[in-house]
Amino acid sequence: MEHVKEYIEANKDRFLEELFELIRIPSISSETEHKQDMIKAAEYWKETIFKAGADKAEVMTTEGNPVVYGEKIINPDAPTVLVYGHYDVMPVDPLDLWKIPPFEPEIKDGKIWARGADDDKGQAFMHAKAFEFMVKTDSLPCNVKFMIEGEEEIGSVSLGKWCADNKEMLKADIILVSDTGMIAEDIPSITTGLRGLAYWQVEVTGPNRDLHSGLFGGAVANPINVLCNMIAQMTDENGKITIPGFYDDVVEISEQERAMLAKAPFDEEEYKKAIDVKELAGEKGFTTTERTGIRPSFDLCGIWGGYTGEGAKTVLPSKVFAKISTRLVPDQDHKKIAQQFKEHFESIAPACVKVEVTSLHGGQGYVSPIDMTAYKAAEKAYTETYSKKPVPVRSGGSIPIISTFEQVLGIKSILMGFGLESDAIHSPNENYPLNQFFNGIQTIPYFYKYFAEMMK
Amino acid sequence: MEHVKEYIEANKDRFLEELFELIRIPSISSETEHKQDMIKAAEYWKETIFKAGADKAEVMTTEGNPVVYGEKIINPDAPTVLVYGHYDVMPVDPLDLWKIPPFEPEIKDGKIWARGADDDKGQAFMHAKAFEFMVKTDSLPCNVKFMIEGEEEIGSVSLGKWCADNKEMLKADIILVSDTGMIAEDIPSITTGLRGLAYWQVEVTGPNRDLHSGLFGGAVANPINVLCNMIAQMTDENGKITIPGFYDDVVEISEQERAMLAKAPFDEEEYKKAIDVKELAGEKGFTTTERTGIRPSFDLCGIWGGYTGEGAKTVLPSKVFAKISTRLVPDQDHKKIAQQFKEHFESIAPACVKVEVTSLHGGQGYVSPIDMTAYKAAEKAYTETYSKKPVPVRSGGSIPIISTFEQVLGIKSILMGFGLESDAIHSPNENYPLNQFFNGIQTIPYFYKYFAEMMK
Repeated sequence: MEHVKEYIEANKDRFLEELFELIRIPSISSETEHKQDMIKAAEYWKETIFKAGADKAEVMTTEGNPVVYGEKIINPDAPTVLVYGHYDVMPVDPLDLWKIPPFEPEIKDGKIWARGADDDKGQAFMHAKAFEFMVKTDSLPCNVKFMIEGEEEIGSVSLGKWCADNKEMLKADIILVSDTGMIAEDIPSITTGLRGLAYWQVEVTGPNRDLHSGLFGGAVANPINVLCNMIAQMTDENGKITIPGFYDDVVEISEQERAMLAKAPFDEEEYKKAIDVKELAGEKGFTTTERTGIRPSFDLCGIWGGYTGEGAKTVLPSKVFAKISTRLVPDQDHKKIAQQFKEHFESIAPACVKVEVTSLHGGQGYVSPIDMTAYKAAEKAYTETYSKKPVPVRSGGSIPIISTFEQVLGIKSILMGFGLESDAIHSPNENYPLNQFFNGIQTIPYFYKYFAEMMK
Repeated sequence: MEHVKEYIEANKDRFLEELFELIRIPSISSETEHKQDMIKAAEYWKETIFKAGADKAEVMTTEGNPVVYGEKIINPDAPTVLVYGHYDVMPVDPLDLWKIPPFEPEIKDGKIWARGADDDKGQAFMHAKAFEFMVKTDSLPCNVKFMIEGEEEIGSVSLGKWCADNKEMLKADIILVSDTGMIAEDIPSITTGLRGLAYWQVEVTGPNRDLHSGLFGGAVANPINVLCNMIAQMTDENGKITIPGFYDDVVEISEQERAMLAKAPFDEEEYKKAIDVKELAGEKGFTTTERTGIRPSFDLCGIWGGYTGEGAKTVLPSKVFAKISTRLVPDQDHKKIAQQFKEHFESIAPACVKVEVTSLHGGQGYVSPIDMTAYKAAEKAYTETYSKKPVPVRSGGSIPIISTFEQVLGIKSILMGFGLESDAIHSPNENYPLNQFFNGIQTIPYFYKYFAEMMK
């Protein structure tokens, strides 16, 4: 274990070149034109795992994009770690805001710049390289299984069924995931909670064609005006979501727990400065950390309709569309919420328009207890690298599949993320600091070490 | 005069071919890439007027697109008619809704299909051909001046100044315009009122970049949610616009006048069926005809922001944009309204976002008295063609330049429109029935005849 630093130092250029080759594949799962890139990325992962020292590695078909599976069984009695990651990435628009072409990775200012640099090519790749180190130095203390999927950014739509179909093969003691972040580069943290997600597209239709806004304006309902009115009704003046029953299953956090969460370092002025806003906004009665960690949210992810070109075209449009998402907290059920939203949204639509609500994806929230063995092993591993104990935090993000793993496979997950908030995942100019990448590779073998020791 | 029908019959194919040549020039004034097409269209009009028999015709520069001016002075003592029209057209998107390429005119089902078929290439062209008939048959009873501009669809931004600069040259007794419609193909009508217009683009900025909606959602204001809330506040539950002072100058119509306006035939069921809406909507206390004719309106012409591609990308967007217009009625001043909107909209913006309001264009409303000579001459001219008196109507549309003419040149306009509601102007599949085109050419010379007689 103590040789891990030397090993990284000796191989760092190769590690980066191998990662870059993966990044160069534009594996955007939400865009069907990238179907072939999904297969390419999966094949590349298979090779990576195999070369790193797996006994076997294969690209397995699902109803959607393939899953890469690989394993190395050192001893049937040793504990088994199932590594989860994803090779798909988010779309790259708006492209004009990128400083570099998103699929041509570059190193600048000590960071890797590219779509997927962090989420999740960079982070998942740390596991391949940590595994390689342990195999090559004969220090692997656990059985290892890899499960790298290609649909995380579109809700892991096929993975649940694939897991159910391969339950025996996937047997493990813990699922190890690096797809989250830590508080700051000098403040390690472990994500102990994730939010769930429900996502819809809505279409509001007024007249059957674009109308002259002079001849018809004032007498025919404008679908954009109507949609805005409907959206405005979805939250109240206290920032509460108005869907009937929406908060029914929200787990209310005790004052004691809130006090604990409040201990995680948070500088509101810095936070506002980083995103250049004068004021924060959200549900009344909760702090910023609570608003993203333990409370649900309601966000418009996109909206479009009518004339969007240059100049002043007057038109009363026929249609407007919006993409709408909510982040959910334990124990909100995304399927129930999806239905509640649809019913409510349709019910508030005035008779002058037609409204169509399509549920696009969803996932449950997740809570990882801090008293489980894997948490303690991860805590010790981070302490080796950072010389300080990681802080447990609730993240506002969602990895819907994590709760599915628990339901389908009966296995808990430990979220050892090395991302930073400044990594701009899902945004233009995504990046991943080299330090985080190498610190990840350095920390992971210690997790295996302590996990194996504690499981004895 | 009695030969006009024969003349049309003998020349109809040529008339159409000449019009089509004009239509084929994609003279979209709001799109800078069509700059050259504006000049082409102006040159074509110059040739048209000249060939029809004008003493002179020229393309005159303005601060924007050129104006075509032409004249035939038969006698300094004869009354002078100044024909106004425009050679620019609206954009064509959404292009996929067109059944034919918008700049390749086709005749089908007795109609001309193309962008500009009605508005205003088809309608303005009737004047060139009616003029040609009167010159060729030596029956022109008035002096004629033509003023065909290229910026009507973007608010005639340069024409006011051009008129002021050429006031002497433009001296006339009446301005004759075909850029409006009639109630139905068997119900001739003359537009006696036009709405004014104010048009803005707004930009709402939340964070300085697109954020991960999981990590930030609930704690950082989403600009789309905020914009929707702001738009929703712009009208109240009675359909009244909430901008302070907005209705201050609205001329309230007497019960007597309302009763007169209510006489124009209107079938609400047919109206709803034609645009496929179950219910109409608008300001409480007013009929559909009143809502578009004598009351202002507030319409979102376009909106865009965030993720608008395929699938479910979760993002908390940085920016959202909207194009917003109001139609104004006499005596609302578009400049005052533009300022009132800007101030109000900025004042209701919460501190968590930045709001930028840009005024894109505007124009005043117009009222044409039914006791003026030109109205009476037009009334008699329509009666020749349709064997029934035309109905005076207030149109919801705007031709901002009409009120500018009155202010700058001191000349009233008479709006002899031959468009039909089904012409889909400003929409995909714009069309213009051949009957309307030929009836227009037939009616116009009678206007000259009666106008000359009445002005004696």
